[in-house]
Amino acid sequence: MNKQELFENIKRKKSFLCVGLDTDIKKIPDHLLDDPDPIFAFNKAIIDATADLCIAYKPNLAFYESMGVKGWIAFEKTVKYIKENYPDQFIIADAKRGDIGNTSAMYARSFFEELNIDAVTVAPYMGEDSVTPFLTYKSHWVILLALTSNKGSHDFQMTMDEDDERLYEKVLRKSQKWADDNQMMYVVGATQGRAFEDIRKIVPEHFLLVPGIGAQGGSLEEVCKYGMTKTCGLIVNSSRGIIYVDKTENFATASRKAAQEVQAQMAEQLKTIL
Amino acid sequence: MNKQELFENIKRKKSFLCVGLDTDIKKIPDHLLDDPDPIFAFNKAIIDATADLCIAYKPNLAFYESMGVKGWIAFEKTVKYIKENYPDQFIIADAKRGDIGNTSAMYARSFFEELNIDAVTVAPYMGEDSVTPFLTYKSHWVILLALTSNKGSHDFQMTMDEDDERLYEKVLRKSQKWADDNQMMYVVGATQGRAFEDIRKIVPEHFLLVPGIGAQGGSLEEVCKYGMTKTCGLIVNSSRGIIYVDKTENFATASRKAAQEVQAQMAEQLKTIL
Repeated sequence: MNKQELFENIKRKKSFLCVGLDTDIKKIPDHLLDDPDPIFAFNKAIIDATADLCIAYKPNLAFYESMGVKGWIAFEKTVKYIKENYPDQFIIADAKRGDIGNTSAMYARSFFEELNIDAVTVAPYMGEDSVTPFLTYKSHWVILLALTSNKGSHDFQMTMDEDDERLYEKVLRKSQKWADDNQMMYVVGATQGRAFEDIRKIVPEHFLLVPGIGAQGGSLEEVCKYGMTKTCGLIVNSSRGIIYVDKTENFATASRKAAQEVQAQMAEQLKTIL
Repeated sequence: MNKQELFENIKRKKSFLCVGLDTDIKKIPDHLLDDPDPIFAFNKAIIDATADLCIAYKPNLAFYESMGVKGWIAFEKTVKYIKENYPDQFIIADAKRGDIGNTSAMYARSFFEELNIDAVTVAPYMGEDSVTPFLTYKSHWVILLALTSNKGSHDFQMTMDEDDERLYEKVLRKSQKWADDNQMMYVVGATQGRAFEDIRKIVPEHFLLVPGIGAQGGSLEEVCKYGMTKTCGLIVNSSRGIIYVDKTENFATASRKAAQEVQAQMAEQLKTIL
């Protein structure tokens, strides 16, 4: 999916919501545990209940890997289910990978060739040759970690270098030489508030993947105020705030309601550009 | 396995070699492709041929993930095979993970609880709360990326900050507050040469996991000259230089020979401390 198609979906659905499929066997409704594949059963119900309200799904690989082979099967089934039933959804493998060139190439093969996922999150610490193997797949996206939503983001990402540039700013600046805004996005946490202003000075046109509203405390309004571009430029993720609002047999309906609330707020924010 | 046990193994085997199981279906001998699980068949043969010459195995997750469910099965079988047959081996999951706290906790559960792997490589970009969930497993290790072996290591890791500290030095210094040398190691590439001197000023006692000899061009002699401690303090990895030296039915014998050569060099280097 290219940038224009993504924006068309955002306009049509009046939403830039990404539902994070951080599916944890310990948190899903008890009645699903009788299902032969509880993780997939949960995901399928959540997807069916929210697909018209969001433009992207983001399974976080950690949650699937922690289940071993069963988890990996559930992950692959989930991706296939979305592809077949909701082909307008942008699928992000939240993997935060990044390794030396030949190894990153293996990850790229895994996500882009085998599974045909749209985008994968990549960590920048190892530099250019850990990122570029993902960029050889021209119709797929790299979403590079820039300024994350967690407390630890202050440990290294905010470090000011001798040229008065913070590390996350250097990541934003240098990585633009590796690919443009048709193939690269950045992770910026919703908890970072005014930093969006500085970020938009460096990447005025790029899409940003924004985790951290809901459970982590970020504000959608603030993110839009400082981060929105004329083609939206935001994919805002909510995981726990949507998928775990109810643990009864009504969980999917409750998740739909939570997604509706966020979508309504997003429609309001989009009025400024549509 | 604790630090003392690791050193005992190094002394007994006169080796600090880690064999990197970067097993790629496209590179293993053709005759193995008839096996129902070629990846595991290859690993098993390599392990049986090298176990008395090395003290650690390091499967890189990328290679297994790129095969999807089949790869994950082969990975789990490999770990189990080493645990059952060569319980003195230190097993490193080369995963380079690192995510927000609750997600890193899922990875930790996966590697340490489900698979009982000794150590996992972790990327530092997201800071303290992305690393500490791994440290709640007291008899397991975090191996934090510090200064990697690839060209891209210069992009961000070498950045000098306003306090005249390079990023990798800051990673080494700050992370020592999270755990000591009984639970934390660092990745330092063999290609970094004299940087080992600077690194030993910051982490004089820690074990370092050193990739990059062989195919990547690092020198074992130089690594030992600047990096070895009185308890060795080095786990030196070789992947392609050992596992892919021969593509015939004799591959395991050839790998053993390659491992023997490295082990002999290591025995020589160990004379300075034993």
